[in-house]
Amino acid sequence: MATRSVAIDTLLTRLAPVLGERLRTDAEALAKVGGDESGLPAGTAAAAAWPVSRDEVVALAREAFLLGVPLVPRGAGTGKAGACIPGAGEVVVDFSRMNRIRELRPDDLFAVVEPGVVNQTLDQAASEHGFMYPPDPGSFESCTLGGNVATNAGGMRAVKYGVTRRYVWGVELVLASGEILRLGRRSIKGVGGLDLTSLVVGSEGTLGFITEATLHIIPAPPAVETAWLTFADVLAASRAADRIFARGHVPRMMEVMDAPALAAIRPLAEVAFPERAGACLLIETDGPEGRALDDLLAIAELATDAGALESAIARKEKDREAMRRARRLVSSSLKERFARKIADDVAVPRSRMGELFARAAELALGRGIPWCAYGHLGDGNLHLNLLCTTEEERRRAEPVRRELLALTVALGGSISGEHGIGLAKRDVLTLELPRPLLALQEQVKAVLDPKGLMNPGKVFPPTKAA
Amino acid sequence: MATRSVAIDTLLTRLAPVLGERLRTDAEALAKVGGDESGLPAGTAAAAAWPVSRDEVVALAREAFLLGVPLVPRGAGTGKAGACIPGAGEVVVDFSRMNRIRELRPDDLFAVVEPGVVNQTLDQAASEHGFMYPPDPGSFESCTLGGNVATNAGGMRAVKYGVTRRYVWGVELVLASGEILRLGRRSIKGVGGLDLTSLVVGSEGTLGFITEATLHIIPAPPAVETAWLTFADVLAASRAADRIFARGHVPRMMEVMDAPALAAIRPLAEVAFPERAGACLLIETDGPEGRALDDLLAIAELATDAGALESAIARKEKDREAMRRARRLVSSSLKERFARKIADDVAVPRSRMGELFARAAELALGRGIPWCAYGHLGDGNLHLNLLCTTEEERRRAEPVRRELLALTVALGGSISGEHGIGLAKRDVLTLELPRPLLALQEQVKAVLDPKGLMNPGKVFPPTKAA
Repeated sequence: MATRSVAIDTLLTRLAPVLGERLRTDAEALAKVGGDESGLPAGTAAAAAWPVSRDEVVALAREAFLLGVPLVPRGAGTGKAGACIPGAGEVVVDFSRMNRIRELRPDDLFAVVEPGVVNQTLDQAASEHGFMYPPDPGSFESCTLGGNVATNAGGMRAVKYGVTRRYVWGVELVLASGEILRLGRRSIKGVGGLDLTSLVVGSEGTLGFITEATLHIIPAPPAVETAWLTFADVLAASRAADRIFARGHVPRMMEVMDAPALAAIRPLAEVAFPERAGACLLIETDGPEGRALDDLLAIAELATDAGALESAIARKEKDREAMRRARRLVSSSLKERFARKIADDVAVPRSRMGELFARAAELALGRGIPWCAYGHLGDGNLHLNLLCTTEEERRRAEPVRRELLALTVALGGSISGEHGIGLAKRDVLTLELPRPLLALQEQVKAVLDPKGLMNPGKVFPPTKAA
Repeated sequence: MATRSVAIDTLLTRLAPVLGERLRTDAEALAKVGGDESGLPAGTAAAAAWPVSRDEVVALAREAFLLGVPLVPRGAGTGKAGACIPGAGEVVVDFSRMNRIRELRPDDLFAVVEPGVVNQTLDQAASEHGFMYPPDPGSFESCTLGGNVATNAGGMRAVKYGVTRRYVWGVELVLASGEILRLGRRSIKGVGGLDLTSLVVGSEGTLGFITEATLHIIPAPPAVETAWLTFADVLAASRAADRIFARGHVPRMMEVMDAPALAAIRPLAEVAFPERAGACLLIETDGPEGRALDDLLAIAELATDAGALESAIARKEKDREAMRRARRLVSSSLKERFARKIADDVAVPRSRMGELFARAAELALGRGIPWCAYGHLGDGNLHLNLLCTTEEERRRAEPVRRELLALTVALGGSISGEHGIGLAKRDVLTLELPRPLLALQEQVKAVLDPKGLMNPGKVFPPTKAA
């Protein structure tokens, strides 16, 4: 282990009485909090803390502030942008032990949670009252709500229900200084002053620690129905989607998988997607009893008119779950086959989807790099993967990735639809945002974090001085 | 007219070549831009400008910045919080002449508008393509989208579609310095850096001039159905609403009117609400053909089970419009009868609605002040009116109003659900937000507006130094 700085040693000494064995510097502990799902190399923090209360977070922040020690908030480490990977000399604050649902108030349409509550845990708790928490990122079985808020997480149900931002009514934020801010509201509506709550959503840990969130829950529709439909290719699937939306249908899920994605999951999926399928749509509807199925049938008919080749509707909950599981297998199956794949989640205006596909294919295949696209078709948010197996292939693919991101911006889109910037896209964020705007954002950050101790080096490219 | 300051005279001289006759200081022009719908006394600006392009706004801001002249952005003046009422020595920038829809891209689900486009104009333009712009504040026939964004405007359809925030993908903001910021995205999803777009939404002109907005439009459901139902009182209506939502129905409108509200509109409305009704719900559903009516019938049945007394479903579009018009008559009819009424739009967690009603009635009637409540029941957002006819009555009612707002906060609610703070609630905002938080918000404002020239004195109580 590297020699620790005096600041860190002092911090450890001062915090030992507060955090006890929940403040650790051993290699095993540091390994646990070093990486995420970005594929980027893990980092080694100077120490890691597992607070169980806001007061502990405040105590830690205060001491770190005085000593100038940088801090990295962490949820379950399921992020895909490296936003929780620590640098040397930094202290990770892992919120997995702050995992209580403090209030669950279906009548008032909200829950108050600690940041370490797992996404699925809230959704399940809400479901016992006939409610749901809509945002469902791919990692919903393990990711935490604090992380969801910090990254403005999306998910498959976003096409109908929107992303995390729509569900965040308020947050309690502990600043780097230890100051506690209670932001937002507990009523459905409410305006008053600048909306700092929305500023915190998606800020990737750069403004402060989220120690509590007030999240909107909604009545769960009684019925959910699921189907898959196949198409000649992704463009045909996309055209069918447009037609469905144009007729006023709003499915709760509209996921696409291209041929390589289908090939990757076929050996594992419990669903037998036809071999000749060039693309597959996974569609879910929900609503009052009876309506969900009527809607799904109407959608299937529109899709068939628009060129769908085959379709299947799930009869039972276990079939529905098998279909969803098949879709969720894509990321891990690809990873298994292409260990060094580069995964981006770009978003474009929907009408540019065809151009994105054509030009991305040209770019990737022109350099002999196999690729794969799947994801949230209804949102214009696709996971584009460059399928690399070796480090050498990945190196060759990197410039293509950069061109793909530039292409996305040229098409009027965003370099990240939902994964965030973190470390992974920090150095390409200027493809999308001009430097003066980033500088202004940093000034806003500085109001809340004047010493620059909150998750330094994430989102914003380091300044020359750093 | 008061003597103008040297700064204003210099500004006028420098801007004359740019703005010509669209820069005025005559009493007639200043009267046009002095007031809003808050009931607060109008102000008299030093000058008023009607720019027709962003470049003119930039030119104006640059000169004003150099000279230290404060600026007040203005839409249609339909706001209810005095946020566009100018102070002496301030220059109003009226955006009504910047009223072009720059792009309308139904395929991509967005429109790009200048700030002076009227809300209804966008909705109608979208409807020609089978689309809609959901936020529909009461003044949708005249209010502008720039004002809607600046106030995060709500409306009747918010219960299903949410408020303005959900539809703002991006804004072009001209800072007080004249710097141009392009914030946000043109794709459905997109995360990248701090979300300054959301910070601008609801900022009431305190951060900069919105010179363009990229707004989300959605496919308009083919069918809309409308009905009214009566109840013994507002609480019975509220219980019916809970039951409807709990069964998974999401009406596009769920408006309540209490007995005084019904009494006020009866002479004018084309709808014959029964005399004995203690409260009325106005409900709209939408969706694919056939579905909307099925939904409305199912809702009416649930409401009847929950105690609805009478109901009527509109047969034709003209009947539907008559029902909506009846609801929209409430504010003006009350104003006609009670010229000095105090109108608040409080929001509370829905389960506290009963307590709000009981305690508000106690407060108001205990002091002999008649009151009225109507508005967005599904959102827990009510327009509470203290029905004063004279200035003397209004003075007597003011302390009651303050107690009502404090009660709202005590119940976990917000002092403004959708109207905003402006001047009207500036001095009571500390009932809801602690001073240190307001101070922090002001620091964030200072990043974008370092000289404090953007709409000074609005939202934030003036500092002692001022």
